[in-house]
Amino acid sequence: MEQRNLYSFEPQPLLVVVSGPAGVGKDSLIQCLKERGCTLHSVVTATDRAPRPGEVHGADYFFLRTEEFLRMKREGELLEHAIVYGQHKGIPKQQVREALASGKDVIMRVDVQGATTVRRLVPEALLIFLTASSEKELEQRLRDRGGDSPEQLEKRIATAREEMRQLPEFDYVVVNRDGELAQTADDVVAIIQAEHCRVKPRVVKL
Amino acid sequence: MEQRNLYSFEPQPLLVVVSGPAGVGKDSLIQCLKERGCTLHSVVTATDRAPRPGEVHGADYFFLRTEEFLRMKREGELLEHAIVYGQHKGIPKQQVREALASGKDVIMRVDVQGATTVRRLVPEALLIFLTASSEKELEQRLRDRGGDSPEQLEKRIATAREEMRQLPEFDYVVVNRDGELAQTADDVVAIIQAEHCRVKPRVVKL
Repeated sequence: MEQRNLYSFEPQPLLVVVSGPAGVGKDSLIQCLKERGCTLHSVVTATDRAPRPGEVHGADYFFLRTEEFLRMKREGELLEHAIVYGQHKGIPKQQVREALASGKDVIMRVDVQGATTVRRLVPEALLIFLTASSEKELEQRLRDRGGDSPEQLEKRIATAREEMRQLPEFDYVVVNRDGELAQTADDVVAIIQAEHCRVKPRVVKL
Repeated sequence: MEQRNLYSFEPQPLLVVVSGPAGVGKDSLIQCLKERGCTLHSVVTATDRAPRPGEVHGADYFFLRTEEFLRMKREGELLEHAIVYGQHKGIPKQQVREALASGKDVIMRVDVQGATTVRRLVPEALLIFLTASSEKELEQRLRDRGGDSPEQLEKRIATAREEMRQLPEFDYVVVNRDGELAQTADDVVAIIQAEHCRVKPRVVKL
């Protein structure tokens, strides 16, 4: 009987939070992990902002009316919620709970402010900070992405600078270099694989 | 200036300790990592036991006379030392210091007793516990390896059972299943890769 305990090393499902400044490549990273066939449940964030061209409800985000979003928040149905550039964003709790219960690792993309909230609410979450290799690189990516006014761009860069200071709240930092998304994804896959081998697993309670 | 600090993510060299019961596959694992071309400095242990057939001085072990070994121990030249089955084993410090200073990760194979000593002396070491998937599997491997009398075999198995209880002292546990050494090596490579991404790196001082 005792022996069964000595040799039981079943990996625990992880709650993986991928964060980092706007424009750093969080969405591309999660897309890349999906394309590799990683068995991750990718959480869909709820927001009341308007969809960008090509964004799909239920896949990219749950696009909710503001009043609907506020109801979920009021009823404690959100793991974290924040107002980012005047728009609400939040993670529906139930989705995370169900995925973890099924034994699947859960990955979610959250801005830095949100990640620090998750850390507070779920200390056992695994927090990965995704960064560009320099501020210059980040700025160029934001320009290339387009869709921001010069004022918005400037604001995003100032925010990114502040966000870098939150790094000590995170477990891992992964540098997403230009043109090296595959290497970035490798690092994230390695982090998840390594965490499955931890002697003291991060057992998430929600 | 400040920005240079914000974006400096140079990985720190690690002191990786691979441990686990006799017969679990520590040597095979390190051999496998070498064959993959992992850029690891593999520490050579000093011992006063006689070489087994095929073992090479300076490669498998430094085979020392007992009095030579005891001199190194007396002069504080050993990172850890222990008497295992009546034979001395120890890790020459200088070798580890030089490899780390050159920026290389260092890997060493140490028995469980030795690993807990390293943990005490070098808290920032990265400790990996290698295990079979069951006691039965371990016993079979020891039999297949040969070279032990029935009494020695029985002693090794009893020791292994005690060693399993030291698991909480370790950072990671990797199951080395029969015929799946490649998967085991994958896990260890992932652990090292992940640890290079830690926000709070393990900076080893010797």
